[in-house]
Amino acid sequence: MRYQRPKGTSDILPGQSEKWQYVEETARLLFADYQYQEIRTPIFENFDIFARSAGDTSDVVTKEMYDFHDKGDRHIALRPEGTAGVVRAYVENKMYGPENTKPYKVYYMGPMYRYERPQSGRQREFHQVGVEAFGSKSPALDVEVIAMAMAYFKQLGITGLRVAINSLGDEKSRSDYRQALIDYLQPHFDELSADSQERLEKNPLRVLDSKEPEDKQFVEGAPSILDYLTPEAQQHFEQVKELLDALEIEYVIDPTMVRGLDYYNHTIFEVMVNSKALGHGYTTICGGGRYSGLVKELGGPDEPGVGFGLGLERLLLLLDAEEIQVPMQNHLDVYVVGIGAATNAETLKLVQAIRDFGFSADRDYQDRKPKAQFKTANKSKAAFVVTIGEAELESHSVHFKAMGSGEEVTISLDDFYANFPQIYDKYLGE
Amino acid sequence: MRYQRPKGTSDILPGQSEKWQYVEETARLLFADYQYQEIRTPIFENFDIFARSAGDTSDVVTKEMYDFHDKGDRHIALRPEGTAGVVRAYVENKMYGPENTKPYKVYYMGPMYRYERPQSGRQREFHQVGVEAFGSKSPALDVEVIAMAMAYFKQLGITGLRVAINSLGDEKSRSDYRQALIDYLQPHFDELSADSQERLEKNPLRVLDSKEPEDKQFVEGAPSILDYLTPEAQQHFEQVKELLDALEIEYVIDPTMVRGLDYYNHTIFEVMVNSKALGHGYTTICGGGRYSGLVKELGGPDEPGVGFGLGLERLLLLLDAEEIQVPMQNHLDVYVVGIGAATNAETLKLVQAIRDFGFSADRDYQDRKPKAQFKTANKSKAAFVVTIGEAELESHSVHFKAMGSGEEVTISLDDFYANFPQIYDKYLGE
Repeated sequence: MRYQRPKGTSDILPGQSEKWQYVEETARLLFADYQYQEIRTPIFENFDIFARSAGDTSDVVTKEMYDFHDKGDRHIALRPEGTAGVVRAYVENKMYGPENTKPYKVYYMGPMYRYERPQSGRQREFHQVGVEAFGSKSPALDVEVIAMAMAYFKQLGITGLRVAINSLGDEKSRSDYRQALIDYLQPHFDELSADSQERLEKNPLRVLDSKEPEDKQFVEGAPSILDYLTPEAQQHFEQVKELLDALEIEYVIDPTMVRGLDYYNHTIFEVMVNSKALGHGYTTICGGGRYSGLVKELGGPDEPGVGFGLGLERLLLLLDAEEIQVPMQNHLDVYVVGIGAATNAETLKLVQAIRDFGFSADRDYQDRKPKAQFKTANKSKAAFVVTIGEAELESHSVHFKAMGSGEEVTISLDDFYANFPQIYDKYLGE
Repeated sequence: MRYQRPKGTSDILPGQSEKWQYVEETARLLFADYQYQEIRTPIFENFDIFARSAGDTSDVVTKEMYDFHDKGDRHIALRPEGTAGVVRAYVENKMYGPENTKPYKVYYMGPMYRYERPQSGRQREFHQVGVEAFGSKSPALDVEVIAMAMAYFKQLGITGLRVAINSLGDEKSRSDYRQALIDYLQPHFDELSADSQERLEKNPLRVLDSKEPEDKQFVEGAPSILDYLTPEAQQHFEQVKELLDALEIEYVIDPTMVRGLDYYNHTIFEVMVNSKALGHGYTTICGGGRYSGLVKELGGPDEPGVGFGLGLERLLLLLDAEEIQVPMQNHLDVYVVGIGAATNAETLKLVQAIRDFGFSADRDYQDRKPKAQFKTANKSKAAFVVTIGEAELESHSVHFKAMGSGEEVTISLDDFYANFPQIYDKYLGE
């Protein structure tokens, strides 16, 4: 009988896992430079948290949640995204208290779950990296977050990036614009797609997200949110633009960008890239923005937040497509060849001693002949090959070969065990 | 309305998350020295995989699985442990093929799930690190795995470790012993605990695991598995002991140790520590051993495996109790104090420039007065404080203070942006 992984999930195998480690470690180091610290929340939360934070019109809630009842009949859901759990943890652990400097800056990384039809780059179990900063209204923080996303992609060697920004303004801006959009779309109600007809009633801004051909002409001619910003919202947006200019981050303004969640306000942004690996033209590899009301909705004070999220599967597709080399860390310093059963213990002692010095070492565990062992040493690109047979065992020595230079020497076991790091340095450069 | 994390789960917050990063990164680096590579399998698998791999008598299957039916009515379970998913991935991805050198060595780390009563160090969502090596029968590999577990704990600074080993022998050893145990226990059937009575029929070796007082005298007087080993099994165990001696790893032999899963054979082991934080006397912090039949059971060739698993929650409890210091990485190199709204853009440019050089930097985003900003700089233990007010802005300079030495200088903005790393080095040591 054969068993398979669940539909829409992947195994990340050796050869691939090093790439995951690299993009994650790059994020950790970079985000630390921005003084964001890691937060880890459970993989599942009470269903209500996601229902409350996503807004009821969201597809995530209505169709795509991995929810179930546990043995205690609690309604649980595997997290569909990272923000809700982080906000829940921020509130429940009272991280908004006076002992923590504002903004409170955190990042997360890990698996997320959506029950949708699997397709290239969209799995049911997928992985995101994201950041959230709570408790500051400063436009400079919006720009810090955008700059951090850009710095991350640049550090990974990704070129051809584009930042698109928009402002959804404050509450009054949005409600004015919402009305303007209804007034504009209502006369064309019968010509809109079924989805857009539904959205027009529940959340008209999301009509602008429509990909349906019949909606296209109406989206293009729609009024712009930017014409409905209040003076305060206008000022916030102007400052964001000025600060992006100051940091020499190029951007385009896309007034039709609305993004999914209901809680966004003021600045929203997407980082896009033009890569055939991800589709035609510019496609989004990171999205984020400023939000309001979410912390309060989950029981905390009325504090704003700003953040972004990005999908690691798409990022790795992009790195592969752009042929960006990731440093592989499974480098082998020494392969120890043991000849004859009598050398078994000494061979194990040798690899252990090398590892205890902080170097990587390996040996054979299959009782294979020397020829096969040397073949493995070559295949694994060991920097050095140490050989010990019965003659060496008797004379308390090893045969030591630097694979780069081809240089070969005999070294006493005492010397080897005492001075391996010096021996390593001495022969590595030659 | 307030929301809470699900019962039995934890939030890992800044201040704690650095410790998690440290124990994980230490494992990654150490395991790479042993040429184990990371494998990541899905958080959930088809239920049957765990049912099949755990054996039907296991509590994990019968009571503690987080299982549910997804929207496609698939019977899914959150993984209760790491080995089954790794074996499934090894088989499904045909990693046993001739292109991979044997043993095939992998490690995993991540969350696991058991629906049990939460108590100290035992959460419903908990985290394990584990290793598996497939395809070798060599006793030297058993010892490598034990040595690796020990090296990991030692590297973390844990002392007072003890290794306990046992052998469950091969199939014939086990069936002979099983019969001997039944013959010995059957006459006392009525005196055994209810659990042990049930186990005596299904899996008599597990009676030896019993913690019930009424079973204690029978467990103590039970025959020893070591007297039932076949000559081949005896030879395997002798070699394990000789190689542990060669590596100077001290161990005790515990013939009553059986461990939970049905697939173990030959060497099984536990690493124990005597710490009040975890309970009275020696308690187990890592368990593992050699197994057979599991790869075949999940559809692969008849290959053996050997590995271990350890719980990170318990490990972190231990590190805290032993007051072992973990290097904290959220060090702040520079805090930039901006005085007056006019400096907002330059302050942002300064922190960005420092971060672009690969150093950590932060600033205020709350429009706070200089005094409050300096207070935050002190609280965050910044190595340097850079101050820019309107005067500095006009003269294109910053005020630069090394917090260690107290030394203060004025530096031109041009110099600062061009040469920050040199400035950092120059003033850090003084």
